[in-house]
Amino acid sequence: MKTEIHDRIAQLRRAMAQAGVDATIIPRTDPYQSEYLADHWQSVRWLTGFTGSAGTLVVTADDALFWTDSRYFLQAADQLEGTGIELMRDGLPDTPSIETYLADHLTAGNTLGIDGMLFSIARTDALRELFEPLGVRIMVDFDPIDELWKDRPALPAGKIFVHDIKYAGRSAAEKIADVRAEVAASGADAVFISDLAEIAWVLNIRCDDVACNPVATAFLYISGDEVVLFTDPAKVDEPTAEYLRANGVSVQSYTDVRQYLSWLPASVKVLLSASQSAGQLVSILGERSVVGGSAVAMLKAVKNPTQIAGMRAAMVRDGVALVQSMVELEQRLADGVRTTEMDVDRILTRHRSGQPLYFDNSFDTIAGYGEHGAIVHYEATGETDAEIDGGNLLLIDSGAQYLDGTTDITRTIAIGEPTAEQRHDFTLVMKGHIALASAVYPAGTRGVQLDVLARQYLWREGLTFLHGTGHGVGQFLNVHEGPQSIRMNDTFAPLVPGMITSNEPGLYRSGKWGIRCENLILTTEAMTTDYGSFLRFETLTLFPFDRTLFDTSMMTPDEIAWVNDYHALVRRSLMPALTDEAERRWLDEHTLPLN
Amino acid sequence: MKTEIHDRIAQLRRAMAQAGVDATIIPRTDPYQSEYLADHWQSVRWLTGFTGSAGTLVVTADDALFWTDSRYFLQAADQLEGTGIELMRDGLPDTPSIETYLADHLTAGNTLGIDGMLFSIARTDALRELFEPLGVRIMVDFDPIDELWKDRPALPAGKIFVHDIKYAGRSAAEKIADVRAEVAASGADAVFISDLAEIAWVLNIRCDDVACNPVATAFLYISGDEVVLFTDPAKVDEPTAEYLRANGVSVQSYTDVRQYLSWLPASVKVLLSASQSAGQLVSILGERSVVGGSAVAMLKAVKNPTQIAGMRAAMVRDGVALVQSMVELEQRLADGVRTTEMDVDRILTRHRSGQPLYFDNSFDTIAGYGEHGAIVHYEATGETDAEIDGGNLLLIDSGAQYLDGTTDITRTIAIGEPTAEQRHDFTLVMKGHIALASAVYPAGTRGVQLDVLARQYLWREGLTFLHGTGHGVGQFLNVHEGPQSIRMNDTFAPLVPGMITSNEPGLYRSGKWGIRCENLILTTEAMTTDYGSFLRFETLTLFPFDRTLFDTSMMTPDEIAWVNDYHALVRRSLMPALTDEAERRWLDEHTLPLN
Repeated sequence: MKTEIHDRIAQLRRAMAQAGVDATIIPRTDPYQSEYLADHWQSVRWLTGFTGSAGTLVVTADDALFWTDSRYFLQAADQLEGTGIELMRDGLPDTPSIETYLADHLTAGNTLGIDGMLFSIARTDALRELFEPLGVRIMVDFDPIDELWKDRPALPAGKIFVHDIKYAGRSAAEKIADVRAEVAASGADAVFISDLAEIAWVLNIRCDDVACNPVATAFLYISGDEVVLFTDPAKVDEPTAEYLRANGVSVQSYTDVRQYLSWLPASVKVLLSASQSAGQLVSILGERSVVGGSAVAMLKAVKNPTQIAGMRAAMVRDGVALVQSMVELEQRLADGVRTTEMDVDRILTRHRSGQPLYFDNSFDTIAGYGEHGAIVHYEATGETDAEIDGGNLLLIDSGAQYLDGTTDITRTIAIGEPTAEQRHDFTLVMKGHIALASAVYPAGTRGVQLDVLARQYLWREGLTFLHGTGHGVGQFLNVHEGPQSIRMNDTFAPLVPGMITSNEPGLYRSGKWGIRCENLILTTEAMTTDYGSFLRFETLTLFPFDRTLFDTSMMTPDEIAWVNDYHALVRRSLMPALTDEAERRWLDEHTLPLN
Repeated sequence: MKTEIHDRIAQLRRAMAQAGVDATIIPRTDPYQSEYLADHWQSVRWLTGFTGSAGTLVVTADDALFWTDSRYFLQAADQLEGTGIELMRDGLPDTPSIETYLADHLTAGNTLGIDGMLFSIARTDALRELFEPLGVRIMVDFDPIDELWKDRPALPAGKIFVHDIKYAGRSAAEKIADVRAEVAASGADAVFISDLAEIAWVLNIRCDDVACNPVATAFLYISGDEVVLFTDPAKVDEPTAEYLRANGVSVQSYTDVRQYLSWLPASVKVLLSASQSAGQLVSILGERSVVGGSAVAMLKAVKNPTQIAGMRAAMVRDGVALVQSMVELEQRLADGVRTTEMDVDRILTRHRSGQPLYFDNSFDTIAGYGEHGAIVHYEATGETDAEIDGGNLLLIDSGAQYLDGTTDITRTIAIGEPTAEQRHDFTLVMKGHIALASAVYPAGTRGVQLDVLARQYLWREGLTFLHGTGHGVGQFLNVHEGPQSIRMNDTFAPLVPGMITSNEPGLYRSGKWGIRCENLILTTEAMTTDYGSFLRFETLTLFPFDRTLFDTSMMTPDEIAWVNDYHALVRRSLMPALTDEAERRWLDEHTLPLN
C-alpha cells in the first residue's frame, strides 16, 4: 500500500507537470460539498491511504502534505507513515494554513491547479483574492484524477424512489412553486441546486447512493418554466420517471450538465449558493450567475405538520429499539458475555432494522467506552474495539433513517456503579441540556444567542466542549442540515417554528471518559404577548437518561422536575409499544422519578 | 418658527435646483459620525425644528420628509406640525426606508446629492450600489448648508488640554507606536482617524467641544514618520503645542485636511474605517485608501492598570455623590417638598460636581418617574417634568466624567411601598443582571453569546427589552464606545480582559413604569484549565440596589448571596469616604442583607 501511495503521488506530479501546474489542492469532498461521500469521490483516500472523514492533500513538485484536524492526528500519522506524505496538524499554533503554506511556496508566474467542481464559490473566490495579487495563476479545471485512477469506482448507481406524500406532506409541484418564489425574491430567473439533500427534498425523491444519507447523485435546475434533474438515466425507472413527469420534471444525463448550463440564454440569471455551489459553475455561467444563499435551505428546515408527525412516530419506534438494545446489552453484561463497542453498534442496528419503515442508520454509530468516549468522533475499529468491562462510562451516539423520520440520540451510561466525579460531570452536562431544552425566546432568535445556556455550568468550572451544541436535522434526510444551528459562532439563521435541531452538550475528560446528552428538539410557539411572539423547544427524542448518573444535590427543583417530567413522557410514549415483560420492566425502572 | 422652516426648505430646494440635484439626504451627524453633536453640526435641527437626537431629512422638488424612530414619534409630530415636512415613522410596517422611498421616486438621469463628509464609507457604498444600477447619479459633494445657514454656529472653540499620564497610564508616543503596529498589520502605511474619541485617546488630549463627551473637533493622520493633528490652531495653547511636539505630533489647520490628503504621494496606503470614516475621504484619497476596521478601537477598549485604578477611584466618588443625592432626595420627599424629575437631575449633578476630578456629566440624566420610566430615552423637559409623588418607581440613569474615569449607572427606586407586581418585575430584571454579572466564559467569547443570560428570565414570561444589554465605556471619554457590546446582534469583538462594559437589562411596562438595573463590569481573568483560559466580570459600580424591590421568593440562594455580597462590597468601599452621619446611616441601612 505505502508503495502504491508513492506511485500515485508520482503520477499526480507527472500530470501536474504536463498541465503546467506547480501546486494542487485536493479536498476530501464532492461536487455537492457533501459531508458523506460516495466511493467515486474518495480520491483523497486513494491518493493518501487515509480513511478518515476530513483532510486535504496539497502536492507541489517537491512536497506532498496532508492537513487534518485533531480528531485524526493519531490515525493520519499511522496511515501516512512511510508514504512520503507529511502530516500537517491543523489547528496547532505551529501549523500554517494551506493558504499560508502555498503563499510562502509559490511565486509570481506559478500556477495553482484545482478541480473547480470540488471548491465552493466562496472558497474559490478566496483563493483568487489571495493568490492573484501574488501573480499566481489559478487554474480551475485541473482534474487529473479520472485519468490516474484506473479502477475508480463508478458514480453511484442506486435507484431513485419516491418519498411518499404521506411522509413528505407537500408535493414536489408545490415545493417547486415555493422555490420559484424564493428565486424570484432573490432577483434571479432560475436556480441551479448542487446540494443533494435539497434536491431530494424538493422533488420528494430518495436513493441509497450515499451511506446514511438517503440522497441521489444529481444536480437540479429550476427556471420559471422548466425543471431539469441531471442524473444517470439508469437510476430512474419508469414509475419514477412517470412521477417526475407528472410534477413537471424532465430528466437529463448527469454528463450533460456543463453543456446545458453553457447553452443557457445570455439573459437568464441563475442563482447559485456561495457555500454549496462549485466555483466552476461561475466560470461556466459567467455573467448569468447570481451568487447568493440557498433558495431551499430555509424551506427544507421548516417541517410541515405531516413531517413533524412522522418524526414523532419515528421517535417512538427508535425509543423501542433502544429499550430492546439496552435490555439485551445489560443482560449480556450480567451474564458475563464479553461485549465490545462494536457489539453495541451491532445490537443497536439489529433492533433498529427490525422496526417498521427502517431504511438505514443515519450516521455511523459512535460507541465509546471509557477513554474512547473522550474522542469526539470516535468510531470503533477492529484494532481499537474495547471491551465494556465495568467501572466506566459508555457514550453511545447513534440514529436511524426511517421513511417517516430521522433520529439522532446520544446517551451516556454508567457501566456499574458510577463515581462521584462521573456523576458530577454528567450532571453539569445535563444542567446545560435542560437549560437549553427549557428556553423560551423571541421570534427571530438565532442559535448563537442560546448556546451559552448549554455551556454556562461547564464554563463556571473552567470546562467546555469544542463541538456545536446543536445542528439541524432532516426528515428522512441528512442528519446534519442547516441553515440553523446552536453554536458559538453565528450562522445568522433564526430558529423558526417547525425546525428540528439537536441539543447535545458534552464534556470530554481526555484519557478518562466522555459524556454527551443529546435529544432532538422542535421549535414551536410558546406565547404571544405585548412584547411579541415567543418560541420554545419541545423535546422529540424518547429515551431515558441514566438515572444513576444524576447528582441531585447539584440540581435545582426545576431541573429535577424537568427530568422527572421527561421520563414520565418517555414512559407514557413507549410503554404502549412494548410487549416484552423484561422490556416493560426496564422502561418502568428507568423512568422512575429521581431520588 | 414654522414659517422659518418653510423658508429654509425652500432655500434648500433652490440650492438643489442650482446644483442639478433632484433629491438630498441630510443626516443628523457630523464628519466623525458622532453620537453627540456640536451646535455647528445641528443642520437637521436648523432645517426642521426637530430637537431630538435621531432623525434624517430627505428633500425632493416636491416633498420634504423626516424619518425618525419610535422614541421620537410624538415629539417629531409636534415639532414638525405646520412645517410642511412629513413625518415618516421609522420601523412601522407601512413606512418605507429612505432608500426604498428614493428608489421609488428617482428615475434614471436623476441626481441624488449628499454631503459625503456626513456619510460613512459603508453607507456611501451602499447608496452607490443601490442607485447607480438605476441610472441615478450620486453627487457626494453637495453641501449647501454653510451658505444657507447665515448664523451657523462656528466650529467649537474649546481649548485642548492634556489628559495627565497619571490617569492615562500610557504616553501618546507609546500609543502612536501601538497604532503604527496595527496599521502595519493591516497592510497600510498610514491611518486617517475621524473618530473624536479615538483621537483623544491616542494623543491623551481632551476638550469640551461636545457636551458630555470630552473630545476635541479634529482629524488625525498617522504615518510611519508623521503624526498630524488637524484642528483649529486657536484650540491649541502653547503648553499643549509643546506637549504635542514632544510626542512627535504637528498641528495643522482643520481646513487644510482635504488638501493635505489630496497631496499625499500616490504610493502611500491610508487606512480608513468603513463605519467611522466619511465616504468622501475615499473620493479624495482614491487608490491610496485602504478601507478596513478601526486601528484604534480595540487598543482603546482594553484599559491598562492605571486606567482601571482610575475607574475604581471614580466609582467611589460617584457612589458617594449618589448616596448624598439619595439622602437629600428622601429628605425632601419626607418633608413634603414638591420634587420633580428635573430636580433629581439637579440634585445628582450638584453632588457629583462637588466631587474631586469632576469634569462634566457623561450623558444627559434620565430620571423617569412612573410611566415616564417606560420611555427608554426619556429626558424630562419643562413640559413633561413629572412630580415624584409616591406609589410608583423612579428610574434614574446617570453618570459623570471624572478626570480619572467615566461612570454610568441606572437604579430603579420605589417611592413608597412597592406593589407585588413592581417587585416581580424588578426581581426578573435583577435575576438577569446577576446571571450576566456572574458569568464565566472562555477567552474569545463575544457579547452576543452572553446576552441571553440577562434576558432569559424575562423571555420565560414573554417579556423582553429592545435595547442592548451592554455597551463599552471609555475612561474619561465617551460613555458609549466599541468595539465590544453585549446585545442580540453580533458585533464580532471578543470580550478581552481590561474591557469595561455596561450590564443593564430592563423591563418597560408602557403607561406604568420602567425598570433598568445598570452597573459597569470589568472583564478579568477567571482561571486557566486544561480547557483553556476563562474570563469573568468584576462589577465596578458601587451603589446599592433598592432592597425593598427584591422578591426573594423568586430568587435562588446564589442570587440572594450575590446581592448580599455586592451590598457588603458597596458598604466596605463607600463607608470610609462618608463622614456625614445621615449618609453613613443611609448606606448602612441600604446595604443590609436581604431578608
